[in-house]
Amino acid sequence: MAIAAIPAAVSAEEMRTLGAARREYGERSQFERSARLFPPASSTPMTGASRSPLQDQFGIITPSALHFERHHSGVPTIDPATHELAIHGLVERPQRFTMSLLKRLPSVSRIHFIECGGNAGREHRGNSGATVQQSHGLVSCSEWTGVRLSTLLREVGLKPAARWVLAEGADASRHARSIPLAKALEDVLVAYGQNGEALRPEQGYPLRLLVPGWEGNVSVKWLHRLHVIDQPMMTRDEAASYTDLMPDGKARAFSFEMESNSVITSPSGGQQVEGRGWLEISGLAWSGRGRIEQVDVSTDGGRTWRQAELQAPVLSKAFTRFRLPWRWDGQEAVLVSRSRDETGYVQPTREAIVAARGMKEGPDGFNHYNGMKPWKITREGMVTHV
Amino acid sequence: MAIAAIPAAVSAEEMRTLGAARREYGERSQFERSARLFPPASSTPMTGASRSPLQDQFGIITPSALHFERHHSGVPTIDPATHELAIHGLVERPQRFTMSLLKRLPSVSRIHFIECGGNAGREHRGNSGATVQQSHGLVSCSEWTGVRLSTLLREVGLKPAARWVLAEGADASRHARSIPLAKALEDVLVAYGQNGEALRPEQGYPLRLLVPGWEGNVSVKWLHRLHVIDQPMMTRDEAASYTDLMPDGKARAFSFEMESNSVITSPSGGQQVEGRGWLEISGLAWSGRGRIEQVDVSTDGGRTWRQAELQAPVLSKAFTRFRLPWRWDGQEAVLVSRSRDETGYVQPTREAIVAARGMKEGPDGFNHYNGMKPWKITREGMVTHV
Repeated sequence: MAIAAIPAAVSAEEMRTLGAARREYGERSQFERSARLFPPASSTPMTGASRSPLQDQFGIITPSALHFERHHSGVPTIDPATHELAIHGLVERPQRFTMSLLKRLPSVSRIHFIECGGNAGREHRGNSGATVQQSHGLVSCSEWTGVRLSTLLREVGLKPAARWVLAEGADASRHARSIPLAKALEDVLVAYGQNGEALRPEQGYPLRLLVPGWEGNVSVKWLHRLHVIDQPMMTRDEAASYTDLMPDGKARAFSFEMESNSVITSPSGGQQVEGRGWLEISGLAWSGRGRIEQVDVSTDGGRTWRQAELQAPVLSKAFTRFRLPWRWDGQEAVLVSRSRDETGYVQPTREAIVAARGMKEGPDGFNHYNGMKPWKITREGMVTHV
Repeated sequence: MAIAAIPAAVSAEEMRTLGAARREYGERSQFERSARLFPPASSTPMTGASRSPLQDQFGIITPSALHFERHHSGVPTIDPATHELAIHGLVERPQRFTMSLLKRLPSVSRIHFIECGGNAGREHRGNSGATVQQSHGLVSCSEWTGVRLSTLLREVGLKPAARWVLAEGADASRHARSIPLAKALEDVLVAYGQNGEALRPEQGYPLRLLVPGWEGNVSVKWLHRLHVIDQPMMTRDEAASYTDLMPDGKARAFSFEMESNSVITSPSGGQQVEGRGWLEISGLAWSGRGRIEQVDVSTDGGRTWRQAELQAPVLSKAFTRFRLPWRWDGQEAVLVSRSRDETGYVQPTREAIVAARGMKEGPDGFNHYNGMKPWKITREGMVTHV
């Protein structure tokens, strides 16, 4: 096959036309349509969740414009020039920190995922037909920059009775969660940067807590207050909600850690595989306990497994991209992934989770559901959840 | 100091008001004004360069909307549904690759900087008064996803005489550069992803070459053709331009590698330090030869040096964020940084570069200038280039 030096798709006219001009703040191409997903017909469009299009994501960084969101009373508009973080309670020197004071303090940058505790919560029911965005879109990963919470707590001085830190947001719901002091001193950040620029409004502009590896709602957004206390505050979102009902009628509370999870994002539900032959199976794995150590992929519904390649650098409590080349023979196939983290914990099957926690009634799903998700490819190349 | 439970900045009215609604594709806060910089009064606004606001960047990922740009005939509008990459010349099986075919092939993601060969090129003249954006804004860093060029060249099969690969863009200037085959097979990518989504138009949508560590203009954008050849093509941009004139009247050509560099971004030119006391000195270091091994910072104009902390992970041919806490005593100070990469190469002073390469006349600057940049802080806290 001979190929002309100039590809056919380019006309002589195009070759003589200057392109678009420079812009102060760029936008994506007019041909890109990837979007966050939320029910369009809500009577309270200010509040709820939007889900990230994981099927369209490359690599491990979620574009800030497509990061999932979850809030209980909409996205507040906060002027950073007047915003303050108050730290009070069981501390020696209560203090208000302006944004400019926070930015003088020693900072760190960390790539971490955030996952809503309710992500994939309805998947315990089995075949839902949900795309990966519909079922798993409440997780995203960014490079966060800010001050260690331990630095701030050293500034104000902890009193001996200090055991927990209540973090409160400046949104209308005053969303608040209690965090054990050990975690607060370990790796929690008070973050003002996301993917190289200021936090996006939906992610807490101008200031948020970032609690690596824990259910998303403890990473309190629009952070304006830290109250150091001696026991958890038992706020609405740690007593009435974000608990895990067990079959015996008791509920687990303060189940903070997001356990090892993974999902294949390509090919995935709703997509069409165009013809047999080689293609790349790709997906995301993550664990709130540390680094992903291994991801296995099955193309026969879990009977046999092959080890996927993990994209370096593999970072703790961050998305890990896995990939496996696969030759589709045009027959029915069932693709599924399974992750193992550095603690040795292996992602369970749906059946194992249901055996432990039972089925849940009503429209809501489980919190902390991390079962494997199988995708079926039909002979026509259609991909669906099974 | 007592602190009320509810910070003063929040009114009772705000507490009862729902915030903004969800959006399919998010935008930054209305309070954020960081922007790419370019001369406003250009008679050809389609073409030229825009510079990234390094002074506002957190961490190592440059927001795609603020990535620097450089092009010779504007940003073309390309429909990915019809775009093709042709590979021809000294190959066994010339082939056109559609975007969907490229996305079936094995992919990788890599965090790499891209730097224009002309970045900071006028700084050899010394005190310019330029901010870090004005002098150093032609460098940015992203997570890139795509196919290894070696994978594509294996698909088409190289003939024995193959030595170079000409890469050509689909912009009106048909920007083209010749790349030695050894580099093409080493770590070059044909990239379609940037920071988790499709390339931005200014960075080559829908397809670009990514030549890690080499001067930016070889990472050909809007890539539509790879011509495998036996010697360099001597295109305009490797013969008449992007060469380095030496004092003896000869010019270095094909000086691809960007050498180890660094610059302090905060505090930096044009900024105001608000009062004495502790603050964080922070900046970016990078090397086209591999990993940054060490960054030293001086606050007395280079007489004494302290080692800065490097933010992990330190990645090859990527931005490395460095930080050093410093207590400003309110006196005049001169801040400067110096990087060393894993090859042992140490960033030179301006004086050493001028001694080797002389001074350049005319409005243009050097290519491959990587001298240290000192910032003076006055007693009033004003920061300027010296």
